[in-house]
Amino acid sequence: MAQNNESEILRKLKSLCKRRGIIFPGSEIYQGFANQWDLGPLGTEMARNIRTMWWDRFVQDREAIVGLDSAIIVNPKVWQASGHVENFNDPLVDCKDCRERFRGDYLLAEELGGNFDGLPLEHISKLIAENNVCCPNCGGQLSQARKFNCMFKTHVGPVEGAGSEAYLRPETAQGIFYNFALVQQSMRLRIPFGIAQVGKAFRNEITTGNFVFRPREFEQMEIEYFCRPGTDREHFERWQEEAWEYYISLGLSAEKLRWRQHGKEELSHYSNRTVDLEYLFPWGKWGELEGIASRTDYDLKQHAALSGQKLEYEDPQTRERYVPYVVEPSFGLNRALLAILCDAYREEEVRGEKRVVLGLKTEVAACKVAVFPLSKKDKLVAVSKPLFDDIRKRWPAIPDTIGSIGKRYRRHDEIGTPYCITVDFETLDDNAATVRNRDSMQQDRVSLDRMVGYLEDKLDR
Amino acid sequence: MAQNNESEILRKLKSLCKRRGIIFPGSEIYQGFANQWDLGPLGTEMARNIRTMWWDRFVQDREAIVGLDSAIIVNPKVWQASGHVENFNDPLVDCKDCRERFRGDYLLAEELGGNFDGLPLEHISKLIAENNVCCPNCGGQLSQARKFNCMFKTHVGPVEGAGSEAYLRPETAQGIFYNFALVQQSMRLRIPFGIAQVGKAFRNEITTGNFVFRPREFEQMEIEYFCRPGTDREHFERWQEEAWEYYISLGLSAEKLRWRQHGKEELSHYSNRTVDLEYLFPWGKWGELEGIASRTDYDLKQHAALSGQKLEYEDPQTRERYVPYVVEPSFGLNRALLAILCDAYREEEVRGEKRVVLGLKTEVAACKVAVFPLSKKDKLVAVSKPLFDDIRKRWPAIPDTIGSIGKRYRRHDEIGTPYCITVDFETLDDNAATVRNRDSMQQDRVSLDRMVGYLEDKLDR
Repeated sequence: MAQNNESEILRKLKSLCKRRGIIFPGSEIYQGFANQWDLGPLGTEMARNIRTMWWDRFVQDREAIVGLDSAIIVNPKVWQASGHVENFNDPLVDCKDCRERFRGDYLLAEELGGNFDGLPLEHISKLIAENNVCCPNCGGQLSQARKFNCMFKTHVGPVEGAGSEAYLRPETAQGIFYNFALVQQSMRLRIPFGIAQVGKAFRNEITTGNFVFRPREFEQMEIEYFCRPGTDREHFERWQEEAWEYYISLGLSAEKLRWRQHGKEELSHYSNRTVDLEYLFPWGKWGELEGIASRTDYDLKQHAALSGQKLEYEDPQTRERYVPYVVEPSFGLNRALLAILCDAYREEEVRGEKRVVLGLKTEVAACKVAVFPLSKKDKLVAVSKPLFDDIRKRWPAIPDTIGSIGKRYRRHDEIGTPYCITVDFETLDDNAATVRNRDSMQQDRVSLDRMVGYLEDKLDR
Repeated sequence: MAQNNESEILRKLKSLCKRRGIIFPGSEIYQGFANQWDLGPLGTEMARNIRTMWWDRFVQDREAIVGLDSAIIVNPKVWQASGHVENFNDPLVDCKDCRERFRGDYLLAEELGGNFDGLPLEHISKLIAENNVCCPNCGGQLSQARKFNCMFKTHVGPVEGAGSEAYLRPETAQGIFYNFALVQQSMRLRIPFGIAQVGKAFRNEITTGNFVFRPREFEQMEIEYFCRPGTDREHFERWQEEAWEYYISLGLSAEKLRWRQHGKEELSHYSNRTVDLEYLFPWGKWGELEGIASRTDYDLKQHAALSGQKLEYEDPQTRERYVPYVVEPSFGLNRALLAILCDAYREEEVRGEKRVVLGLKTEVAACKVAVFPLSKKDKLVAVSKPLFDDIRKRWPAIPDTIGSIGKRYRRHDEIGTPYCITVDFETLDDNAATVRNRDSMQQDRVSLDRMVGYLEDKLDR
């Protein structure tokens, strides 16, 4: 593998993603906007695969987890109860000279190293002053840190005013909490059980960056797992195992994954224990992929108090009533995709030429099979078209007729297509085609009659 | 079938949807909010089915349509170019007495009958005055109609001000237009081709209502189909056929579907021809399920002009350059779900008892098979559990052990489960179970060894 410095890989990956239809800079023709990104055709398929693998594993294949799809804009009381109106703040500091704004805890992390998430405002201000941290933009003096609420605000209905104010949800979790009783009763669920939701959430981040690592709009895949108080610790540990296995199934390297437990100051207002599953990103830092939070009965009790509704569970055997404890595994789709791309990207020397490969797991790859007729001659098209149609009925596939076979291989290596099939003039005689493996680059001559079976063995393991 | 008045059916359907975990009133513990709705566990599965059937039919199975997943909050210039900042307005009228606000065109439709969509403000004011239309709330006098922009506004970044203003997308379409060149080039697409997107859109409606027919937050499934100018009419007609077939595949009755062409005044600013596929809802009115709009080259030209980028296509054979025309089939997921539920709902007399059935297509039903052990006795559970596990590997299934078999049938009739299997004491002798068909209520005794094959014949046609 060629030697690269790490952020160089990120730069190359961004360029590949744009060129190959995986991830586009958002609003690109208008010079972008607010670190938003759009998934291109192949990124959309990859995200669908990641989402489906998650849903199949955690919802479809289990009796005790059901899905939910709640609204993004909900009654603002939800965010009062959850504590987000009061507590969902980032420490904002401005430069007194250039007026640029920054997240105080991130500036400290850059300058001093370490993690300053959740540090109280006065500590941040003190550390900035003590360590003489200046504006990274102009070197100017920085203000005291102050609270900035990260929820996006909007107004609902034709009158703008205090009564019409609403928020874009900053997490999908609350939709699960306020629906707890409706879901439990309608589905006759018995504890322990989980409610799962996949959907967009929005955070008005002060500082964004690192490609799709921290955009202001992102997709969460969350489970709230309701259990009997006292059993939360065992479920917490089981969910750590489950989460780890999921990321391995996506193709991430175990040696680039680690658990990190939140310190006391870093814990969210609702949690008594949180661990992050972190990935070692190519910019050289560990970043959160997934968090598991022990949310206790905080959210259900808060909603019960504000709404006056009972959010309890009655054990059908013992008739005992209690407010369940909650363990929350919270997955981020964008970050999973980013980690997968980083992990899969590699450069190799092949007979003196460089090739770039995305070594994606077949389950994640957007295109599983490509079919190349060697030339656009009618007689080759007549053979390759029905073959392609057969394949496309079973797996996402792309036909490719442009450029030399070598160029077509390179293109499909770059998007991680596991198998490329070349239909050549010999095919007219032997009724077979050459299947080339992305990773080993080995070529097998496979009879067209056996082709679907051959691919089934490789792809549907 | 029992005789019911039509809005009575809607009331019953809402109640069933809440009771059975299909659709919940949004923020229900806080007395709702802004006509938002949440999909419960079964509604989430049904929506997944509708979405997958759409994606498989229009994207996965076609060479010439690719997917996209663009951001909800984008550069506000997108909405300048598209004309939404200027033109995406509803006619707002207030009551001078009670201050309630209404959509003028809807008041006219209620009062006078007919469709007043897109009528200029001064005509609406004139018709309200001429026909002496009063406030439906208090009978008070109504104001002149004035423009109300239906986009939700928010602010991005830590400073609220003119420069940070942004909108929630009112349609997914624009994400496709501003990405046109990136998609076409990265995927090497040749005209005609389509770009498809499924995602949330937001409209700050003045008047909402009719269950999930017009919420402020909804899910669109849109295709922008790019073609050579002059061929748009033929593609338009083909898309009419395709859309019709899709709704029939969802199980809607053809006699409750019709096309309605937009009149000149009703046409959107970007369209020279639009037809709506309408469904006859149980409240006695035809409502739009899907629109097909001929958007010409309006959007691409607008974005090209504002961004200074070329949004053209070069024909690889003739080297001719042109701005493609666009045909847009725009589907609404919520409305599809609502129409499916309305169409499927029926009440029947069975041996003197009423039964409520959702006669859903098996492809749409959330649960395909239920398994009932006749009693909770260990020896029955020992037989029914492995059967259930076998079935659940293949199809979404629910085990149900509570209440009499008759009650369990009724419950699964209400959620549209096509097949219910009862494991009884005879099963221990004959190694067979009773499969009951939802619609015919016929019962087949099927050997457990043949059960999966039997269900495959029924479900995987």
